[in-house]
Amino acid sequence: MTLQVYFNAGASLWPEYEPLLRDGFKVAGIKVNLFDQTDDPASVDYMIYAPRSKADDLSAFTNVRLIQSLWAGPDLLIANPTLTQPLARMVDDDMKLGMIDYVMGHALWHHLNMPLFSQAKPGEWLSEHFPGLPRDRTVAILGVGQLGMACARALAVHGFRVLGWSRSQKSDDLVSCHAGPDGLSHVLGEADIVVLLTPHTPQTENLIRSETIALMKPGASLINPGRGALVNDADLLAALDSGQISYATLDAFRSEPLPADNPYWTHPRVQVTPHVASETRAETAVQIVVENLRRAEAGETVRFLVDRGLSY
Amino acid sequence: MTLQVYFNAGASLWPEYEPLLRDGFKVAGIKVNLFDQTDDPASVDYMIYAPRSKADDLSAFTNVRLIQSLWAGPDLLIANPTLTQPLARMVDDDMKLGMIDYVMGHALWHHLNMPLFSQAKPGEWLSEHFPGLPRDRTVAILGVGQLGMACARALAVHGFRVLGWSRSQKSDDLVSCHAGPDGLSHVLGEADIVVLLTPHTPQTENLIRSETIALMKPGASLINPGRGALVNDADLLAALDSGQISYATLDAFRSEPLPADNPYWTHPRVQVTPHVASETRAETAVQIVVENLRRAEAGETVRFLVDRGLSY
Repeated sequence: MTLQVYFNAGASLWPEYEPLLRDGFKVAGIKVNLFDQTDDPASVDYMIYAPRSKADDLSAFTNVRLIQSLWAGPDLLIANPTLTQPLARMVDDDMKLGMIDYVMGHALWHHLNMPLFSQAKPGEWLSEHFPGLPRDRTVAILGVGQLGMACARALAVHGFRVLGWSRSQKSDDLVSCHAGPDGLSHVLGEADIVVLLTPHTPQTENLIRSETIALMKPGASLINPGRGALVNDADLLAALDSGQISYATLDAFRSEPLPADNPYWTHPRVQVTPHVASETRAETAVQIVVENLRRAEAGETVRFLVDRGLSY
Repeated sequence: MTLQVYFNAGASLWPEYEPLLRDGFKVAGIKVNLFDQTDDPASVDYMIYAPRSKADDLSAFTNVRLIQSLWAGPDLLIANPTLTQPLARMVDDDMKLGMIDYVMGHALWHHLNMPLFSQAKPGEWLSEHFPGLPRDRTVAILGVGQLGMACARALAVHGFRVLGWSRSQKSDDLVSCHAGPDGLSHVLGEADIVVLLTPHTPQTENLIRSETIALMKPGASLINPGRGALVNDADLLAALDSGQISYATLDAFRSEPLPADNPYWTHPRVQVTPHVASETRAETAVQIVVENLRRAEAGETVRFLVDRGLSY
């Protein structure tokens, strides 16, 4: 049987993914018709999908057995009311490595007092602000799922004291794990650097807002490689102005590209990065796609299936 | 017997070191007279020393059996013609950790394309400059001694491809090691990021100059947490202007504090840090001092004794 596989993930990705997907299915011995345009949605068996794609109304794809997302975060997909088919999100090892790079690099930047040194005036020799060692610095990772725990462990191996927080209690030999509202208070009160890697759900919307910012150590810093909606922007800007938060490195925003008139661009205590903390990489993503379609077709358990009740 | 120990290392360090040293000698069962002023240099048995101290003329200390430096780099000590006594330099584990932090943090900053993103104008969303993964990035450490090899190994564990270069051939299971002029050409030609951690000797003076910069990959970047004299400043500035070197993070300078009119302060492709890459930390340094004095007194091998022939 030949499977009908529709690549519904943005025209710019097609040239990169098409040859890799054809090779991948061939190696796996799966016969497919692979196409990036269709006039017959009901004939499609599997969909490879990224949000903000060609066809965001998915209601006509009535026979799709699995939608395999190319994105790690399922929030934008779940917000689409026409998406009712089984949905698997993307978790690939290279995405993990990229996220570890981003979190480690920016945590070290904060730790090394670079927000201060990078703004020194000519001749301003601030050697008395010699940084401490990682063992004296506490980093909190809010959201210790696949990506978050990988980052937390990398920071712990480097020598930082690392606290993890998540909806449900996790445990790890390197990371001190906490859960629930009491856990959040504890973790925010201890951390010098707070990293946001929770999925965006109704429960985590505005996770960083006046009430939670007030629980933070005065002068702590923030890194958001997660989702823009985790942060109440007005509250964060107020905390940066008051000094309650000393610095913020932000990669995810409620509106992207971040508009030129957004105050984050010019705030002296904010570093904007253009949503580059991590990205699905075609070579490894294709392996996940092919393996998940093989599993679905063989009746085996599909990996990283999204539980709509939890929003991830 | 009571040893006469002279702390000749700058008045500002005395309040921090004195109680730690007294405790350390007591725990080790070594009886000492410890003082930071002396009218009788010939009576001194051991000296704890840092350059630019109270007494830089050391010729009257005729009976000193060991000068234990608080500094890792022996170059400023060796340049002192009155220093003829046996000299041990400081190598402590916390200094290593601090240097690893600095090198890892700034290497990641370069790797993550932050020199570009940090200078984006409002609205300039440069997401196409998505960084690669560490395995696709080569870092060269020039100088794989105690500190350099520790940094090289940490970068390799993180996933970077790491090349080491030194005067004499080293070997390591994680770092590809090279030596001599041919080794230098090879390493400079491969590296995306070059880190300077060689000691300053007549042979390494101006290690980075027009001739060696021309061997580098176009657009490679430089990190200098070592010594200012390793770099020909005019040649580096010319290479930054031409783009042969894309960015430089500099912590050590020929004149420190770096004068306000030095062009490094305002160059758009230079990050100055105020000699904070690493510093001797009193708690761990005192352990080294006490142990080395114990060894010297017991006739055992003193650790990190400086070989004047090699300048380190």
